[in-house]
Amino acid sequence: MKNREIHDLLNRNEHIYILTHTLPDGDAIGSALAWGAALRHRGKKVRIFCPGVIPNKYAFLPGVLEIEDDFPASLPKGIVFVLDCGDMERLDCMEEKVREAGKIVNIDHHATNAYFGDYNIVDNSASATGEIIYRLIRENNMLLDREISLCLYVAIASDTGSFKYSNTTPRSLQVAAVLLKKGVDPSLISRKIFDEYPLSTVFLLRDALATLQLDETHSIAWMSLHEDVLDAYGAKAEEMEGFVNFGKNISGVEVGIFFYHTRKKETKVGFRSKTVDVGEIAAQFGGGGHPRAAGCTIGAREDTIAMEKVIQAVKEALYKKEGLKTVKCD
Amino acid sequence: MKNREIHDLLNRNEHIYILTHTLPDGDAIGSALAWGAALRHRGKKVRIFCPGVIPNKYAFLPGVLEIEDDFPASLPKGIVFVLDCGDMERLDCMEEKVREAGKIVNIDHHATNAYFGDYNIVDNSASATGEIIYRLIRENNMLLDREISLCLYVAIASDTGSFKYSNTTPRSLQVAAVLLKKGVDPSLISRKIFDEYPLSTVFLLRDALATLQLDETHSIAWMSLHEDVLDAYGAKAEEMEGFVNFGKNISGVEVGIFFYHTRKKETKVGFRSKTVDVGEIAAQFGGGGHPRAAGCTIGAREDTIAMEKVIQAVKEALYKKEGLKTVKCD
Repeated sequence: MKNREIHDLLNRNEHIYILTHTLPDGDAIGSALAWGAALRHRGKKVRIFCPGVIPNKYAFLPGVLEIEDDFPASLPKGIVFVLDCGDMERLDCMEEKVREAGKIVNIDHHATNAYFGDYNIVDNSASATGEIIYRLIRENNMLLDREISLCLYVAIASDTGSFKYSNTTPRSLQVAAVLLKKGVDPSLISRKIFDEYPLSTVFLLRDALATLQLDETHSIAWMSLHEDVLDAYGAKAEEMEGFVNFGKNISGVEVGIFFYHTRKKETKVGFRSKTVDVGEIAAQFGGGGHPRAAGCTIGAREDTIAMEKVIQAVKEALYKKEGLKTVKCD
Repeated sequence: MKNREIHDLLNRNEHIYILTHTLPDGDAIGSALAWGAALRHRGKKVRIFCPGVIPNKYAFLPGVLEIEDDFPASLPKGIVFVLDCGDMERLDCMEEKVREAGKIVNIDHHATNAYFGDYNIVDNSASATGEIIYRLIRENNMLLDREISLCLYVAIASDTGSFKYSNTTPRSLQVAAVLLKKGVDPSLISRKIFDEYPLSTVFLLRDALATLQLDETHSIAWMSLHEDVLDAYGAKAEEMEGFVNFGKNISGVEVGIFFYHTRKKETKVGFRSKTVDVGEIAAQFGGGGHPRAAGCTIGAREDTIAMEKVIQAVKEALYKKEGLKTVKCD
């Protein structure tokens, strides 16, 4: 989609609807808020929608309270920007109502994007959807003030794990540099989005680490928590995000696994890997994901049976893997 | 110091000695290796020194094995570059021998630098000494290949906590962008310097979290470990770095404290704070540091007595602090 077309589309429409995906992350929320603010400054009537709950750690973002969770029927016709969604399913059943509201502009950076829009701005070389929004704002001479910069910085820092992940490019860093010049405080943002959590999270981590086990070659490290423990602390499942890395990060460990046992006798399994394709392993159990990060859900009468099955599958993948050195830990 | 002077100094000297501080971090090691490689490429005879042990996580840096720990007497006269040292004490008693080896060029970014060199290149607006070395390399048209870029990236990423700390500037990010263009892999480096640790570290964290306590207002969070526990796992004291943040990062907590009890009946105390000046608190016990990060060592017959004294001092500082809201945790 050319800037000329965006320009025309914006000129012809007063109403703008911005949507992003369920279980939103910093890129989804930051991109939506930044794009909304830039369009409002252009005189547009903007409403922003996200199905489900916005995690508390994003509460400091300007405009976050205006995000609505339910997309109403019979809205005045306008343009619908769908941000950071690989497909319309991530809009959590809002697709039909959304398509009625106007032409869809799909803005995304996922390689798997389904090009579901009437217009598609998809760039998988961008580290985050926020990086694409930044480009649109610059190329169309739109407002880039401190608040919009803050939202875009949150988007890019979130999706690159503070510039640690492999999607970090020279361009991500250059854009971040411009956003800092606009007055963004990187240490405040990092504290809010990476380094602040409720007390319950530390209790969960403590209890999870107490369950840490490794296989005999120290190539697999796993931990587990039961839903009852979360309830005891009033904790949310999202607080366990990242726990799996404590096992994976151990020197010599190839695969980290985290088991979350629910009261419904299901075990949700998270995998993180250094070399082995854990997406394939998760697929064996009806799950999926990427080679280095994947997940699945297993039903089993006993929690331990689910764990044993999974660990066995990981062992088989590890031993099959040619040339694997099962390094002993320090 | 002007580039003209550096140029002349380099032209007049064949032997170059590069030194950095004891207990070296990524900035110390990365800067020294980058500067050494750039000068070697210029035809200089370079030796690099660092008193004490180089942490294992930097073993992947090109040239790290050539770093020597003992500065010999009677070296041929040359130039001595002292990097990332606020004062000569950080060279661990090598000062006298170092001064005999030639004129000293002090390159540093600490605001407290003592200007101890015959020449001083001190810039406290730089996020890392590596950022100053980058500038010297560019301004003097020296080599910036992939290996030198890698060392400089480690320097800047280390000292900014992967661009999370408040010393991160637009320039830090712009320099990092150039280094990525030279072929540096940010995810590999981040894994090596931030996200990989021996098994013993996870055991220590598990045991430390098991001791987590908070005061009645949930404003202070503390944990402790005894030297005997480290020995049981064959762990090094450096592995406890960052544990104090697990307490400090809890929502509502103002001060995190970590107590390390040695067999000599000493308690080493680390403080991290969101608002209270913990440098002042540490100073009450003969320690020091910054307002947000400080430390001290206390001798006491009983470990619990040392802890009680410190917690009491933090409480007094907190309650004295005007307008403090002792927010209850989630």
